Amino acid sequence: MDRTIWWDYGRACIGLVDQTLLPVQYRAITCPTVDDLVEAIRALRVRGAPALGVAGAYGVALAARTVGGTGFEEYLARVHETSLRVRSARPTAVNLARGVDRALGSIGDAGDVEEVRERTLGAAERCAGEDLSACRALGAHGAALLSDDATVLTHCNAGALACVGWGTALGVVRSAIEAGKRVRVIACETRPLLQGARLTAFELRRDGIPVTVCPDSSAAHLMREGGIDAVIVGADRICRDAVFNKVGTYMHAIAARHHGIPFYVAAPSSTLDPDLPASRVEIEERGEDEVACFGGTRTVPAGVPVRNPAFDLTPFDLVTAVITENGVFYDPARLFP
Amino acid sequence: MDRTIWWDYGRACIGLVDQTLLPVQYRAITCPTVDDLVEAIRALRVRGAPALGVAGAYGVALAARTVGGTGFEEYLARVHETSLRVRSARPTAVNLARGVDRALGSIGDAGDVEEVRERTLGAAERCAGEDLSACRALGAHGAALLSDDATVLTHCNAGALACVGWGTALGVVRSAIEAGKRVRVIACETRPLLQGARLTAFELRRDGIPVTVCPDSSAAHLMREGGIDAVIVGADRICRDAVFNKVGTYMHAIAARHHGIPFYVAAPSSTLDPDLPASRVEIEERGEDEVACFGGTRTVPAGVPVRNPAFDLTPFDLVTAVITENGVFYDPARLFP
Repeated sequence: MDRTIWWDYGRACIGLVDQTLLPVQYRAITCPTVDDLVEAIRALRVRGAPALGVAGAYGVALAARTVGGTGFEEYLARVHETSLRVRSARPTAVNLARGVDRALGSIGDAGDVEEVRERTLGAAERCAGEDLSACRALGAHGAALLSDDATVLTHCNAGALACVGWGTALGVVRSAIEAGKRVRVIACETRPLLQGARLTAFELRRDGIPVTVCPDSSAAHLMREGGIDAVIVGADRICRDAVFNKVGTYMHAIAARHHGIPFYVAAPSSTLDPDLPASRVEIEERGEDEVACFGGTRTVPAGVPVRNPAFDLTPFDLVTAVITENGVFYDPARLFP
Repeated sequence: MDRTIWWDYGRACIGLVDQTLLPVQYRAITCPTVDDLVEAIRALRVRGAPALGVAGAYGVALAARTVGGTGFEEYLARVHETSLRVRSARPTAVNLARGVDRALGSIGDAGDVEEVRERTLGAAERCAGEDLSACRALGAHGAALLSDDATVLTHCNAGALACVGWGTALGVVRSAIEAGKRVRVIACETRPLLQGARLTAFELRRDGIPVTVCPDSSAAHLMREGGIDAVIVGADRICRDAVFNKVGTYMHAIAARHHGIPFYVAAPSSTLDPDLPASRVEIEERGEDEVACFGGTRTVPAGVPVRNPAFDLTPFDLVTAVITENGVFYDPARLFP
């Protein structure tokens, strides 16, 4: 299976699929410097909370290979400082900060530059490996929730492209199909950047999984028509009181509740944040042009302001269950033992 | 005030603002033949239920001026037959059919071609005049519902551009401002054709009314943030049991209910349809390319099917009140005496 992000051992740098080019082009790029990685994260060449976690960890390994310094102390200080630029490239997904912290934490009492390089890359590779196995495990847990013949509505891309591979919401779909179930996906296009239309539709079609794209605003109408059996989305951060995910998630959760359709959040436990209350999570507000322009055409009159929150907050009372690699949690309190 | 659609007396044909060119270009075009008008309706050069009603009536007047026939009987048959092509150009908005029927009904016992031409154009001009005065009257009724300092969320374009002028949902906003209130508008961009971003933002900015554009999927998030005082939308058909309007309306109605925000439908009584139950109204499904392509760029991978319902159905239990030129109706049963 292809990976979304990996360590390129030949060039000693990060490799990743540039997701801004999909569905037109499937192309791998390399990030030889931390600046390249920060740019790739900000421009959403790599996105999706689990993939960002791995990107953060690889980012520390990259920093350990690219910074200089006149002594070991200065080298260590620069590794930290450079890694923090990766850590703050995007604010909402907890995984990015977690991945950076974990790889930095692995340095411990390392005695020289070579050992720092080895430990940080080792930690990053463990992050990547654990992400894959978490997706496989949560996929199996979630698959049991779907009927033998199910239509799943999803938002944004919580698929292989949002992780190292397999996916979270789409991992549940893949695991269900692997278990012999028939599953079809309705992919909301996900304005403004169309990750549902571009990425979810791309990876499902590539894998032969039936997928139909719809405008975000038609999801409630499709629920009313009666063809949706479950909504499954990913998450960028799961606090004790709410789930943060791509803007639109909250609207789907309200509509699912209105129609009595189960609403599942699928995410590895690396997305859990027991420490920060939802009210203190920063919801990234991205640039106006993502909404106001498309392919060079201006769709909003010049001078008209635009709101472009990248995420929204869904309180737990609208979530039927959270699916992690550790099981299916109907009671969110049990997510945080 | 500019009109959206009018009779061009110099050229004896229909004139209208081509709304597909906005916000980049504000340009009037003429429809010298019924074929031109049918194309303009199908391509959404003219859209919005009230404007379509007037377009339908003008369409009969245009037919009366452009069809031939070897005798008066044959001429009348051709006027009818040609008018029916206008009537069926789009299925969901009741106003289009109503406008055609009203102008056809005006022919009555007309004795010659000239009289048919006069009567149909007279009926069409009455439709246009009544639309303007209905918008003014419903605007005044609706304005009383808004506080002195209100933020109104709207969907699609139920403005001057959807009517002959003034507007329905935006007519309420204009009337409130005329009455000295401070009103700001949040315009949902309205995928796939972006009537909110392109048209609502354009006409409000032109008139100096504060407007901010947001993706459709962020509306529920903005409601949760607390900045929305009311949702006001237009309607394409109001049956005894439900309101049909641009897809996304239903989702906003569910979210408004969830947040305890009043949800108003503003429409002239020409949009009422007491005869057809909602279950028998055809919801127009438009072409896939409206969703799958943008400015020549493909956003959905080739071969992936797309759902593109142009409208959705909002049951009355989610509607706080319907505002028509006859008043504010909290009990929809009173709309149909």
